[in-house]
Amino acid sequence: MLVVITYDVSTTSEGGKKRLRKVAKTCQKYGIRVQNSVFECIVDSTKLKQLKYELNAVINEKEDSLRVYRLGDNYKGKVEHIGTKEVVNMEEVIII
Amino acid sequence: MLVVITYDVSTTSEGGKKRLRKVAKTCQKYGIRVQNSVFECIVDSTKLKQLKYELNAVINEKEDSLRVYRLGDNYKGKVEHIGTKEVVNMEEVIII
Repeated sequence: MLVVITYDVSTTSEGGKKRLRKVAKTCQKYGIRVQNSVFECIVDSTKLKQLKYELNAVINEKEDSLRVYRLGDNYKGKVEHIGTKEVVNMEEVIII
Repeated sequence: MLVVITYDVSTTSEGGKKRLRKVAKTCQKYGIRVQNSVFECIVDSTKLKQLKYELNAVINEKEDSLRVYRLGDNYKGKVEHIGTKEVVNMEEVIII
């Protein structure tokens, strides 16, 4: 399924910047970074659990906000991009 | 349906900050701000067209990135929040 992770963290602090880097690194094991703090991952339910477990270990629950949106398997046509930085096709990335 | 809008803009420039404020103002006519640049809107297809039309007029297509995720009508259970700033129930906001 396609899972969209959005991460809200203050990057004015060094700690926040570091956590964003770690969240990006974690999410990029499962998918791609489509915006500065938005990640699209293709995972099954087991991998999703693992991803959330890893993210929980990285973020500061008292300061940061993380949201997980499950778009299911039929996600084509549910995602639209406007503006710059159009990302490459998800599946191409996954195959590589 | 639930539509998630994520907006990536550089807020180091005055123009970027201003556009983020305008995008927030536009999205908040249709829903709520759940993170600094993530908005959740409950719209039908007509309102979604209108929302996208309004957003197109605000953003700078050459510099900004905007993504639209359609989560459909059965979105309950598809959205999960971890960390701070849990938002109020969408429908309560809509009803008010």
